Amino acid sequence: MNLFTLLSMVLGFTCVVISIATSGNLSDFFDLSSIFIVIGGVVCATCASFSRERMNSLLQALKIAFKKSKINLTDDIDKIVEIANVARRNGLLALEELTNEMDEPFLKKGIMLVVDGSDPELIRSIMETELSVIKQRHADNRFILDSMAAYAPAFGMIGTLIGLINMLTSLDDMSTLGPNMSVALITTFYGSMLANLVFNPLSKRLKAVGNLEYLRKELILEGIMAIQNGENPRVIREKLSAFLPNSQQQSRETPNTAEIKAGSH
Amino acid sequence: MNLFTLLSMVLGFTCVVISIATSGNLSDFFDLSSIFIVIGGVVCATCASFSRERMNSLLQALKIAFKKSKINLTDDIDKIVEIANVARRNGLLALEELTNEMDEPFLKKGIMLVVDGSDPELIRSIMETELSVIKQRHADNRFILDSMAAYAPAFGMIGTLIGLINMLTSLDDMSTLGPNMSVALITTFYGSMLANLVFNPLSKRLKAVGNLEYLRKELILEGIMAIQNGENPRVIREKLSAFLPNSQQQSRETPNTAEIKAGSH
Amino acid sequence: MNLFTLLSMVLGFTCVVISIATSGNLSDFFDLSSIFIVIGGVVCATCASFSRERMNSLLQALKIAFKKSKINLTDDIDKIVEIANVARRNGLLALEELTNEMDEPFLKKGIMLVVDGSDPELIRSIMETELSVIKQRHADNRFILDSMAAYAPAFGMIGTLIGLINMLTSLDDMSTLGPNMSVALITTFYGSMLANLVFNPLSKRLKAVGNLEYLRKELILEGIMAIQNGENPRVIREKLSAFLPNSQQQSRETPNTAEIKAGSH
Amino acid sequence: MNLFTLLSMVLGFTCVVISIATSGNLSDFFDLSSIFIVIGGVVCATCASFSRERMNSLLQALKIAFKKSKINLTDDIDKIVEIANVARRNGLLALEELTNEMDEPFLKKGIMLVVDGSDPELIRSIMETELSVIKQRHADNRFILDSMAAYAPAFGMIGTLIGLINMLTSLDDMSTLGPNMSVALITTFYGSMLANLVFNPLSKRLKAVGNLEYLRKELILEGIMAIQNGENPRVIREKLSAFLPNSQQQSRETPNTAEIKAGSH
Amino acid sequence: MNLFTLLSMVLGFTCVVISIATSGNLSDFFDLSSIFIVIGGVVCATCASFSRERMNSLLQALKIAFKKSKINLTDDIDKIVEIANVARRNGLLALEELTNEMDEPFLKKGIMLVVDGSDPELIRSIMETELSVIKQRHADNRFILDSMAAYAPAFGMIGTLIGLINMLTSLDDMSTLGPNMSVALITTFYGSMLANLVFNPLSKRLKAVGNLEYLRKELILEGIMAIQNGENPRVIREKLSAFLPNSQQQSRETPNTAEIKAGSH
Repeated sequence: MNLFTLLSMVLGFTCVVISIATSGNLSDFFDLSSIFIVIGGVVCATCASFSRERMNSLLQALKIAFKKSKINLTDDIDKIVEIANVARRNGLLALEELTNEMDEPFLKKGIMLVVDGSDPELIRSIMETELSVIKQRHADNRFILDSMAAYAPAFGMIGTLIGLINMLTSLDDMSTLGPNMSVALITTFYGSMLANLVFNPLSKRLKAVGNLEYLRKELILEGIMAIQNGENPRVIREKLSAFLPNSQQQSRETPNTAEIKAGSH
Repeated sequence: MNLFTLLSMVLGFTCVVISIATSGNLSDFFDLSSIFIVIGGVVCATCASFSRERMNSLLQALKIAFKKSKINLTDDIDKIVEIANVARRNGLLALEELTNEMDEPFLKKGIMLVVDGSDPELIRSIMETELSVIKQRHADNRFILDSMAAYAPAFGMIGTLIGLINMLTSLDDMSTLGPNMSVALITTFYGSMLANLVFNPLSKRLKAVGNLEYLRKELILEGIMAIQNGENPRVIREKLSAFLPNSQQQSRETPNTAEIKAGSH
Repeated sequence: MNLFTLLSMVLGFTCVVISIATSGNLSDFFDLSSIFIVIGGVVCATCASFSRERMNSLLQALKIAFKKSKINLTDDIDKIVEIANVARRNGLLALEELTNEMDEPFLKKGIMLVVDGSDPELIRSIMETELSVIKQRHADNRFILDSMAAYAPAFGMIGTLIGLINMLTSLDDMSTLGPNMSVALITTFYGSMLANLVFNPLSKRLKAVGNLEYLRKELILEGIMAIQNGENPRVIREKLSAFLPNSQQQSRETPNTAEIKAGSH
Repeated sequence: MNLFTLLSMVLGFTCVVISIATSGNLSDFFDLSSIFIVIGGVVCATCASFSRERMNSLLQALKIAFKKSKINLTDDIDKIVEIANVARRNGLLALEELTNEMDEPFLKKGIMLVVDGSDPELIRSIMETELSVIKQRHADNRFILDSMAAYAPAFGMIGTLIGLINMLTSLDDMSTLGPNMSVALITTFYGSMLANLVFNPLSKRLKAVGNLEYLRKELILEGIMAIQNGENPRVIREKLSAFLPNSQQQSRETPNTAEIKAGSH
Repeated sequence: MNLFTLLSMVLGFTCVVISIATSGNLSDFFDLSSIFIVIGGVVCATCASFSRERMNSLLQALKIAFKKSKINLTDDIDKIVEIANVARRNGLLALEELTNEMDEPFLKKGIMLVVDGSDPELIRSIMETELSVIKQRHADNRFILDSMAAYAPAFGMIGTLIGLINMLTSLDDMSTLGPNMSVALITTFYGSMLANLVFNPLSKRLKAVGNLEYLRKELILEGIMAIQNGENPRVIREKLSAFLPNSQQQSRETPNTAEIKAGSH
């Protein structure tokens, strides 16, 4: 989630604006009171649905998601295998000084637990709890965006109903019927745009980011358990590369396979 | 769920009222018989769908949810670690006098079970049963609100159909067509408002409150099992802090990590 | 599910009738051929979707649900604890004469299995199979009602389409357009009413009844396993009271807690 | 799924035809080009969504479902108990000659595996794999019908859009507006009919048939495992009768209960 | 997914074109700016929802799905049994030279792991991780297509709203009302066509392809575990043929059943 996402949204709005500009009058599609009812309604309904802490957490998640550098699972595997090599050569305690260079807090925490000599069950239990708490928080964040994506067209329709009722009450002057109904439809238009170019894409984006992060953390968890277990670094690489798509898995027909065979016992 | 939720709802209605007032006549949007059919329909359909006990339980849940002081997991962890310290120093029986100060019934019950010297399996089984019963009751409560959120627009549409059929039956006087249809649409408007500014937000709110409460009770359960198991208070803190979001977890680079290492055996 | 449900439905229909009577002409809303297409369509589609045995089973479930006396979990716990006391005093074989007074077939069957001296695994397996078969049958029953709730508006719309097509084919006389369209809309009205005041409420009602029955049977299962295991009646009460909502759980600060402590070993 | 299903569908169509005939002109509802777009669209979209093998498999499933004789779980239990009796008297090898009379392939296969003296784990693994493959194939079949039930109204709407666009392009002659729009609506009518009187009922029917078949196969699996385990035929009947609804379970207050007690050890 | 899928789509579009050509003017249904808003909107919303890597992965999946030769589980079983025979005769190491002829990467990888002498737990863990990663990627791919199938009608409606608002703003000349509204409806028409003849079928197709591939990989996994376990090739065939539909399972009444019996120990 980076410039590409934002750019796509802007481009989407541009498409719509071009489409309006070539077929009609752009100013007909700008109506302050329509913006007021749609945005106001969505914001109020969302605030009524979620606590401030939850919404702050969503904002932070979005901020992080937009800033986050690419996740590269291959690099993570290299890193873990490197750690495993150090652990093999110099013992688990030697990993402590490595933790300073780690920027993934989950990896760092796991290695600290290994250095501390905690029980494997304790480490796994702590890290799995953290994983499931993270997963729940991601689901909560998406739930807010999904709710907004549902509120937006709903308040668009409420705005249109208000416009229609107003229009129908004073139906004397037939010449104003068209423009009035046109204004009424604008809120539905706004609601649809918000849902389909902002809230839905953001929710789907967060889902993808979350799934990838979750996969990464599972990989790290397996790696840490293997390191503590003192497994052969080659076996660890073998194990972890199962997390990669086929195309990224390294060719295995290397002279080293014999070494793996030996090391797995 | 507190003033913030209520305020947001009121603000949402205010937005709609302002929007109406600036574009038309507020009195056109007030129609007693429309209120009657929408509210009456929703209430009757809900009563037909759920037992009185279930609805009382929902009302109580809402009352509690609005009153409830903030849940602070960090405080809960501090409390449990404090209890663990007492247990370490003075034995499990010494916890009995602590229970008087506990205001979380789930924690209190668990500690009582520990004091009674019950088997760990029995404690876990009792507390997990209670957790799943609570979870089911929360789901049931949300189900009522979700049903009301579905009934509201449905009866809105039924009201509109009644209005339209009435209007179409006596189509002689075209001048009344507009106002009649306007009245017909008002029930749909009411139904949408109820669903999107009352029932849906309340349901989502209860869900968030429930998730947090559930997380808290899981934390307490893990804490109690660890206390009974006589685990080191530092290890317990380590274990339980996995329930916190990353940002709230305390820095671990303290001189005490060695102590954890020692204590985990 | 008792008079309260039926009354609510009747009241819901009354609301709609009052609403019609005050705003128009009740006779305009009664149209035999519209009733024919909606009811006929729903019945035929439902018969095509489910076997006669399945629908008979639903009817029986509804009959039972309406007759059923209130489920009181506290009474069930008292009963099970009483049985456990007899078993403690006079042995498991003494339970045989108690079974004559039991009106819950699931409890009776379980006790019979205990009296027969069956293996705990066999008892658990038999009772869990029965539970899951019951759960499946409940889900099947709800599925029929949910299907009817979906067919009703669908055939309402089909009826309206027929009306509209008829009306549009012979558009010569504009004076009949209104009444014709009004008749066309009546089927949609009927379909909505059936779905929202009959089928949906019944389905939700069966779900609630089923959930409660399921909880009760789980409670009984745990109780029977504990009785066979020869557990202390007080511990059994402790265990089973976890199935109750907090508000119904008895205060535990009684002088007997020491006894539980002793009994749990 | 037998004559009853077909008859219900035919009756449903008859209801609609009667409803049309009494309110308008049947010939107005027959439009070849509307049939062409709806049927053609649904068939093409379905073919694009599923492979020929999948659709053949659905057709076969429908054929079997319509032919299939009633499943009677009580008979299955009698059969299995009878087999268990033979196995007790004459040994597992004596079951081989019984397999010729078995018409349920799943039962036959299981008995063959028992006769072959396969490991219990192997038998369970093979039969559970087969069960889950069958379950998946049933789900796939229903998925095709559900897709068709979704495509039908979609192409109905596409046809209506084509009709409306045609009509609106040439709006000169207002007298043709009605009939043109009437023709436009016919595709929506066809789509709704197909979905609600053909595809949806068939899908629900397959689901029910599949659930019952699945329950039966689970019963057979449990029975075969018990036979191989050499369990007492009475205990087997006890175990398997848990699969029956309460009403069909035989009264247990027979003099033979003592025998069960003895046999379960 | 091959020519058959593409052909069906083309045929579906042809149906619609024929339907238009016989009822109106084809050129009325071609509108560049409508294509622009629908395609532009769908592409932008999709780009905003998913990363470029994800969309590349979908394109590759579609390319592979269209090229892929038929999956024939019977052939896979033959192959695995053949490998098992070689392993029995010449030992596990002899399998290395067979891997060159294997074109299924999953099978190849598994056999390599067996040749390497890895632990059974390691092999199962690696292959199950790979399976679940593949499953997740398939689900992700379908999620993109499902999102596009939802965006298409949404932007169709947005286009129609733009058209309606334009039309209603300048309602002076009633003679242009029809054509203008007709143009407005074209975007909805485009959106429906895209969803129902392109995105939905592709998504369903990928699902079927994925399910089959997943079943195949599960079969391979079971086969490899059995080979490593040194099981009798006949038992392996028995085990794996449970993955086939009943109709494809070979008749078991062969003289070889005795051999299986002997071999299973």
